[in-house]
Amino acid sequence: MTSYHKPDEKTLQGLKDVANKLRINSIKATCASNSGGSSELMSVLFFHTMRYKSSDPRNQCNDRFVMSKKLAFVDVATGSLGQGLGAACGMAYTGKNFDKSSYRVYCLLGDGECSEGSVWEAMAFASYYQLDNLVAILDVNRLGQSEAAPLKHDMETYRKRCEGFGWNTYVVDGHDVEELCKAFWQAQQVKGKPTCIVAKTFKGKGLKNIEDLDNWHGKPIPKDRVDDLLNDLKAQIQVPNKTLSPELPAEDAAPADLSTISLSAPPAYKKGDMMATRRVYGVALAKLGQSSQRVVALDGDTKNSTFSETFKKAFPDRYIECFIAEQNMVSVAIGCATRDRTVAFASTFAAFFSRAYDQIRMGAISQSNVNLVGSHCGVSIGEDGPSQMALEDLAMFRAIPTCTVFYPSDAVSTERAVELAANTKGICFIRTSRPETKVLYSPDEKFEVGLAKVVRQSDTDQVTVIGAGVTLHEALTAADTLAGEGKNIRVIDPFTIKPLDASTILTNARATGGRIITVEDHYKEGGLGEAVLAAVGEEPGIVVTRLAVSGVPRSGKPQELLDIFGISAKSIAQAVRQTFAN
Amino acid sequence: MTSYHKPDEKTLQGLKDVANKLRINSIKATCASNSGGSSELMSVLFFHTMRYKSSDPRNQCNDRFVMSKKLAFVDVATGSLGQGLGAACGMAYTGKNFDKSSYRVYCLLGDGECSEGSVWEAMAFASYYQLDNLVAILDVNRLGQSEAAPLKHDMETYRKRCEGFGWNTYVVDGHDVEELCKAFWQAQQVKGKPTCIVAKTFKGKGLKNIEDLDNWHGKPIPKDRVDDLLNDLKAQIQVPNKTLSPELPAEDAAPADLSTISLSAPPAYKKGDMMATRRVYGVALAKLGQSSQRVVALDGDTKNSTFSETFKKAFPDRYIECFIAEQNMVSVAIGCATRDRTVAFASTFAAFFSRAYDQIRMGAISQSNVNLVGSHCGVSIGEDGPSQMALEDLAMFRAIPTCTVFYPSDAVSTERAVELAANTKGICFIRTSRPETKVLYSPDEKFEVGLAKVVRQSDTDQVTVIGAGVTLHEALTAADTLAGEGKNIRVIDPFTIKPLDASTILTNARATGGRIITVEDHYKEGGLGEAVLAAVGEEPGIVVTRLAVSGVPRSGKPQELLDIFGISAKSIAQAVRQTFAN
Repeated sequence: MTSYHKPDEKTLQGLKDVANKLRINSIKATCASNSGGSSELMSVLFFHTMRYKSSDPRNQCNDRFVMSKKLAFVDVATGSLGQGLGAACGMAYTGKNFDKSSYRVYCLLGDGECSEGSVWEAMAFASYYQLDNLVAILDVNRLGQSEAAPLKHDMETYRKRCEGFGWNTYVVDGHDVEELCKAFWQAQQVKGKPTCIVAKTFKGKGLKNIEDLDNWHGKPIPKDRVDDLLNDLKAQIQVPNKTLSPELPAEDAAPADLSTISLSAPPAYKKGDMMATRRVYGVALAKLGQSSQRVVALDGDTKNSTFSETFKKAFPDRYIECFIAEQNMVSVAIGCATRDRTVAFASTFAAFFSRAYDQIRMGAISQSNVNLVGSHCGVSIGEDGPSQMALEDLAMFRAIPTCTVFYPSDAVSTERAVELAANTKGICFIRTSRPETKVLYSPDEKFEVGLAKVVRQSDTDQVTVIGAGVTLHEALTAADTLAGEGKNIRVIDPFTIKPLDASTILTNARATGGRIITVEDHYKEGGLGEAVLAAVGEEPGIVVTRLAVSGVPRSGKPQELLDIFGISAKSIAQAVRQTFAN
Repeated sequence: MTSYHKPDEKTLQGLKDVANKLRINSIKATCASNSGGSSELMSVLFFHTMRYKSSDPRNQCNDRFVMSKKLAFVDVATGSLGQGLGAACGMAYTGKNFDKSSYRVYCLLGDGECSEGSVWEAMAFASYYQLDNLVAILDVNRLGQSEAAPLKHDMETYRKRCEGFGWNTYVVDGHDVEELCKAFWQAQQVKGKPTCIVAKTFKGKGLKNIEDLDNWHGKPIPKDRVDDLLNDLKAQIQVPNKTLSPELPAEDAAPADLSTISLSAPPAYKKGDMMATRRVYGVALAKLGQSSQRVVALDGDTKNSTFSETFKKAFPDRYIECFIAEQNMVSVAIGCATRDRTVAFASTFAAFFSRAYDQIRMGAISQSNVNLVGSHCGVSIGEDGPSQMALEDLAMFRAIPTCTVFYPSDAVSTERAVELAANTKGICFIRTSRPETKVLYSPDEKFEVGLAKVVRQSDTDQVTVIGAGVTLHEALTAADTLAGEGKNIRVIDPFTIKPLDASTILTNARATGGRIITVEDHYKEGGLGEAVLAAVGEEPGIVVTRLAVSGVPRSGKPQELLDIFGISAKSIAQAVRQTFAN
């Protein structure tokens, strides 16, 4: 084991000077006193501890830095608090286990954001997976947004919490560059544990009559005092022209592989076979894993229900069990996907992605490419009851600007959805279903994002019915019944709900007298029905009738619930007859 | 201080017998081995420790029980894990500080759900507020859903985490009724701290060749073994007819007051005055607080931005600072509102309610009456950037089945929205805006849920424009500009987005040639525009043009962003001219 060498005095003074320069720049930029508390932390990290190519900040070999405590666009956008450490965990897990590279990950957290449970999900994750390449720096400056943070400067309680969550922990003076240099060095020596450096700091440090005072937080410094403060700070800079350069990283991570990923074998189903789309997800992901080392899977202790366990069985080293912590799972997936190191698929019950909606929202702002797969959508899950039924997930994911929403209705299209998601930028969401449904397509059917399929048609169709998942099958059953009554309907499988194939829908709606019926296993708001309305809203003469779940459902047998909530073949046939009657 | 008296042998045996009876019933009901691990916990809690009227389970004086670890409908629905303790915190805070009653709150958690950060948000909250009337029972049975929970039976790590989070903690044998009786008694003696009883248990306890074995989890017991197991358990029951009755609670909580709550004084603004709706929220809530002791407010360290601090200043004892932990804030609010003990309003930036979407979803399933107020909606917040802009909140809240969505556009309607929310069942969401906007209504204007206002009209209107918040004011500005060009438009303020006043919209749309333009400071999906489409979708001959934010926004000046994202007066005027041209 190497022993610690204290940096020479010139380096230490250089780091102090950098801190004061940061402070000066911060005051000049904002005229505010709320920046600069962590200037020494930033100085030591960027000019002493971290190894990176300053000319190539996103190089794959560089150490990573995640600024959780405020808005920053390095690899992930933050600004909604408490999300940085989870993303840092994903980067560190990737560095250690997938890239097997020596790059390290540093994450700066504020004390206020430690009230967010997501921070503790990440703390538990990092120690469970022994991420000794991860360092969290907890900047304890005592001040929150509207009042002091709950633990104020109680450093020992922070220490206990961090140690309780399995982290190697140092409590330091966050303004002492020498102490910081040593703590970061010690962190590099520790094996099998992540390190947390709990740094006591004061906002406005070094600013006369401002430091640590509550009523200065976030407020501008009066113009007439700015010059005095700047002169004070400048006077402390002793080696103004000293240039500190970061150490270069080891070249032990390959550039990202950006090639297209394909299923290792085409779908192998016979039309008419029964197969649940959630089960097919596992099969498809394992095929992608076969084709590319970059494909990794995450799950939140539901792998035996979402079928991500099929991937885990094939590639145990590329599966990350995130336990029951969906917020952290999404953040870890986002972290794994940064700098295109992996193509990450995270799965849980679709309902439980509601737990991570803020992380997903921020993922879009970060321009993250991550794939989320939600099983057990709708009332068709049956007996497990309303808490397990996703009925708002389409509304959630449609309102994410970078999101592609896949809602495949059979085994063949599910395999293709998973394949397309792996190669589609932005957030991808795939909605899978619990019940077994018929295979509708032949193995060679081609699928594209934004391309709907007309799955049933005749020259005499009087109405276009659009369903997806179980309701597409209900629509086909209704079509058979209605054909027996001499009433023909057209049936469309949208495949992706966002983007929605407005052109196919419009063409067929016009061909069927302008009449559309949508039917969805989702609440009436924000789902398939409103997506269709949005696609045809500027077209006069088109009328859309929507069948969807209204009110909080209850548990029951799947088919019984489809009937009760008016989205079964029976309800569709009735709606069609009503349309004919009008 | 009273000293502990061990229960007599007969009582202890009675409690053991109850546990085995629970086990028998569980096996009979499900033929599964996964229940029954916590039978002794339930037996001691319900037949020894808790005080309640068994004939009146929802009596306000009863001790409360929250079953966090699985689906249960006592006061709050669980089933999405990790939410029970936050609700229990709300009940305990209410009991201690508002009801000032002696009822106690018991919350049973599973070990798997302790991976959820929301549990640790609640842990921090309970110790910060010294909730010594709260007992968490952590049932550590080692088994998760798809594999063992991360800490397995590592009881000392659970102890460290609970103690680190400020709880008085006992580690016990969860199958030893005597030890449990004593621990619950000790918890009653502790002042100033909540107590966590960390109970080591085994699933399938007492079932030969099943206890603690992974591969039995959740699986049915073979039919031919059920009889043997039941006979084993029956043989252990020694006092089959012993009746244990719970102690009655103290009668020190008044029945809930269900009377209507009104503003203590009518809105006091002049038409044309400038006033931000977020600021009015604080004024209105303080007025409600004046009228009723039951009104309480919660915030997540944003009180100086949401203006809940106006209420705090007036009624500091009825304000709960929840710090930066939105999930827990919503759960605490739901807990405060159970059994109609309080009328709770929780506020934060609307964007940050995305953090608590699962809690809100579950609140609806619990039939909770809770009011959520989200400030800083849309791009009109300006410089703070996209992470702080709520652009998906209408989509989120519209898809909550019990939710009323208020989107007031001026000071008068905001005060009335807050008053209506206090008296409206289900979840209420109020969307407030950051910029100052003109007062539109006179103080005596009447508002109702589901009733829109036509704020500008003439006999020659050619199109109906529907806006809300800042975009309503942009629409009025556009109307002035267009009137100068001889083009008249009708302008509607929907007031509530859910329910939406379809009738007023339809009538006016028909009166203006079937033309509607919607304009909203929200993404295009799931918001005002789609709500309007849904209202008119079955009407032929109505055409809806939607102006909304598309793509991830950036920061900038508010008016500049309204222009860039096409929702300013300029864009509205342009869309109207386009309509005239067609």
